Amino acid sequence: MRHLLDTRTLARDDAIAILDVAEDMAATQEREVKKLPTLRGKTVVNLFFEDSTRTRISFEAAAKRLSADVINFSAKGSSVSKGESLQDTAQTLQAMAADAVVIRHGASGAPHTLATSGWISAGVVNAGDGTHEHPTQALLDAFTLRRRVHGAASRGRDLDGVRVAIVGDILHSRVARSNVWLLTALGAHVTLVAPPTLLPQDLSRWPVAVRYSLDEAIAERPDAVMMLRIQLERMNAAYFPSEREYSRQWGLDPVRLAALPDGTIVMHPGPMNRGLEISAAAADSPRSTVLEQVTNGVSVRMAVLYLLLAGERTEEER
Amino acid sequence: MRHLLDTRTLARDDAIAILDVAEDMAATQEREVKKLPTLRGKTVVNLFFEDSTRTRISFEAAAKRLSADVINFSAKGSSVSKGESLQDTAQTLQAMAADAVVIRHGASGAPHTLATSGWISAGVVNAGDGTHEHPTQALLDAFTLRRRVHGAASRGRDLDGVRVAIVGDILHSRVARSNVWLLTALGAHVTLVAPPTLLPQDLSRWPVAVRYSLDEAIAERPDAVMMLRIQLERMNAAYFPSEREYSRQWGLDPVRLAALPDGTIVMHPGPMNRGLEISAAAADSPRSTVLEQVTNGVSVRMAVLYLLLAGERTEEER
Amino acid sequence: MRHLLDTRTLARDDAIAILDVAEDMAATQEREVKKLPTLRGKTVVNLFFEDSTRTRISFEAAAKRLSADVINFSAKGSSVSKGESLQDTAQTLQAMAADAVVIRHGASGAPHTLATSGWISAGVVNAGDGTHEHPTQALLDAFTLRRRVHGAASRGRDLDGVRVAIVGDILHSRVARSNVWLLTALGAHVTLVAPPTLLPQDLSRWPVAVRYSLDEAIAERPDAVMMLRIQLERMNAAYFPSEREYSRQWGLDPVRLAALPDGTIVMHPGPMNRGLEISAAAADSPRSTVLEQVTNGVSVRMAVLYLLLAGERTEEER
Repeated sequence: MRHLLDTRTLARDDAIAILDVAEDMAATQEREVKKLPTLRGKTVVNLFFEDSTRTRISFEAAAKRLSADVINFSAKGSSVSKGESLQDTAQTLQAMAADAVVIRHGASGAPHTLATSGWISAGVVNAGDGTHEHPTQALLDAFTLRRRVHGAASRGRDLDGVRVAIVGDILHSRVARSNVWLLTALGAHVTLVAPPTLLPQDLSRWPVAVRYSLDEAIAERPDAVMMLRIQLERMNAAYFPSEREYSRQWGLDPVRLAALPDGTIVMHPGPMNRGLEISAAAADSPRSTVLEQVTNGVSVRMAVLYLLLAGERTEEER
Repeated sequence: MRHLLDTRTLARDDAIAILDVAEDMAATQEREVKKLPTLRGKTVVNLFFEDSTRTRISFEAAAKRLSADVINFSAKGSSVSKGESLQDTAQTLQAMAADAVVIRHGASGAPHTLATSGWISAGVVNAGDGTHEHPTQALLDAFTLRRRVHGAASRGRDLDGVRVAIVGDILHSRVARSNVWLLTALGAHVTLVAPPTLLPQDLSRWPVAVRYSLDEAIAERPDAVMMLRIQLERMNAAYFPSEREYSRQWGLDPVRLAALPDGTIVMHPGPMNRGLEISAAAADSPRSTVLEQVTNGVSVRMAVLYLLLAGERTEEER
Repeated sequence: MRHLLDTRTLARDDAIAILDVAEDMAATQEREVKKLPTLRGKTVVNLFFEDSTRTRISFEAAAKRLSADVINFSAKGSSVSKGESLQDTAQTLQAMAADAVVIRHGASGAPHTLATSGWISAGVVNAGDGTHEHPTQALLDAFTLRRRVHGAASRGRDLDGVRVAIVGDILHSRVARSNVWLLTALGAHVTLVAPPTLLPQDLSRWPVAVRYSLDEAIAERPDAVMMLRIQLERMNAAYFPSEREYSRQWGLDPVRLAALPDGTIVMHPGPMNRGLEISAAAADSPRSTVLEQVTNGVSVRMAVLYLLLAGERTEEER
């Protein structure tokens, strides 16, 4: 694997290969000494143009457990904020011999530009770009789902026939987009659940069903409901229901939690707005996989960094 | 040891055990290669809700010298500042397999909540919470005092009969509180020295003497005077003397420095306001242990991390 | 070597010795595993009173490739910003057993004060102080020039007779100052190119030629033109030409680029203001050494840290 930029172009078998390596990584994390020498001497740069402590420390932990050196480059206060171009920042990291660049950027497509520009030979991992994609989030979600469905026999398996409802502000969510492409590539059936103003207009091209009512979606007995985080700063926008209205209609409150079929899991990418899109009862229930997702995030990111930096490259990727 | 949350509940023998391990750690710091492999593969998270560069880098140096991986998590600009609960932050760190969480928080009791909530299994170290406690500061102070009193024969010893005057804004000082409990548990006699408005009201429950005059306290020939840092942002509060008045009455100026008995040491937790609570003459005099305290801080924090992460746990602590 | 504070007092042979060690370091960076165990157990503190992500991560990468532990100490939000003196900050780092302190400071002379005060025994590296010096920048520039001139036979060589034009805001540039002293010590001929208001007044003491016209300087066929970064925040000052005027007269535009003799290289310390002091055509041309300079920066900083921390010290330096 050369880069990880999106899930839209990630083939089913390649996705399964990543998830299988993540299973290996997860196994190492249960040992007394969690550290592997695999990436010793490699340098991973976290290039964050937007703050995201959670994602940054997940990648940092993943890289360090593989013995890579990690350099955190926050764009705030740097020459980047003084108008340096992405090209010059990228080439600088390249010239410092960064082996992988984990980039979070407010502009959709920035990681793709970085990877395909010829500016760098380092592997590029998209850690969230605009409203476009957040592929490692989708991979950790798929990993979590696969383990719930197939348990110890997960290796090599996909999500054929698994039904997932993704609930919330789909319009602005890169997490939703990455999950739609990945989960459907793995054979899952995805239903998007949101008010009409929070859904993209071009949905005809998406391989999904749509429901405007969370109650209706729950009545269809999904295997998982994935609650998206509400960006509070959007709350005053005209297309957005009020907080109260949102919570009443699309929040996973205790009544809806109780209405879920046995075995249905509750997912959330975090950080949660408890009492808004998800009730404390749901967040802390045995159905919740929120913390499993965090744990799996480290394993999946270890797998991605491993495949980028230690994996074999095809002739074409060199 | 499972956590280090305060000194109030730290038994004399447990405190001495920590100080003795710190002696071992101090010995390793005098070698050519200061690094020990002890905590290789362990992850220490510095979870700082308040800025404190000094305390953070002391813990960071301590953890790295034990070969732990360190992840710095500043709450500023993170989801924490966007309203994420302490519970969710804690559980996230737990899910990432943090082995120890060093927490500084503006709210008294936050480390205790973290440790006793069941949210995490990681060891918790209180690095300062509100006006409550700062236990590693008190341990490094006790370590410094013990070395001054007993020298090379410190191991196993306490501070029986040692007289310590703590001077300054006791009311708001977690350093003062932690020192009162620890030093008295170790047998020291503590005198608090402050204007009445900077003393707590419930002093009858504290095992201390009180003086309103620094000159009077010095006349009683203490073995150590510990000058607390004045928080400049409090200076305009009604209960606070003016800067000039404070310095004149409770500052360790050159005249008072000269009045100290032979052998009396001058302590300060840093950073110092030279010319306010402590004169340059006092700060830089041979009596000053300010820099010894910093050095000992690394050894004491190495000891605490070691005991939390590599030490044996009792049946009850598991 | 005890400290690296400036190039003004760096003797020719000492400079060549640093460049030769940097050649060794560069060779290690071409291996599969770039990491050396040389500085294992040493602690390097990046003490940055001014933001400079590029310089900080270059030193961080250099230190980590030598297996040192790195602690980043940004003065923002720390006790330093609350008025702690440089002395107390320095002594604190010393007490924590920092082996080297890499300091960037807004005040000219701060690194010299740090090194000669007796406050610390750690090696001090000046990473830029006020308008005074930035010696590792000059060393990496000299390294880059030497490799361009002498290629694989660089070891032991100087820059005798090499002609370098330094173009831009000389008045405020520590990069220019450090380069003037170092390049001329190595035998190069330096021409400063700037409008009169951006040149220092005491130039009679500088071993340089001066031109007010870039076209004239180019007509003299320099071996290298070094374009300085324009600090945009100075652009409204009375002594400064307008942006448009500056770019027209002192910018390396495509016409001037084409007028350069064969073999003349284009240098820039970065980050670049493309379209202002340097055109994209120049920045990305085969003549540009901008990225080589970044790569060489890591090698030169490895060499400096190595010589400070692992090199032999003379009797006088101990």
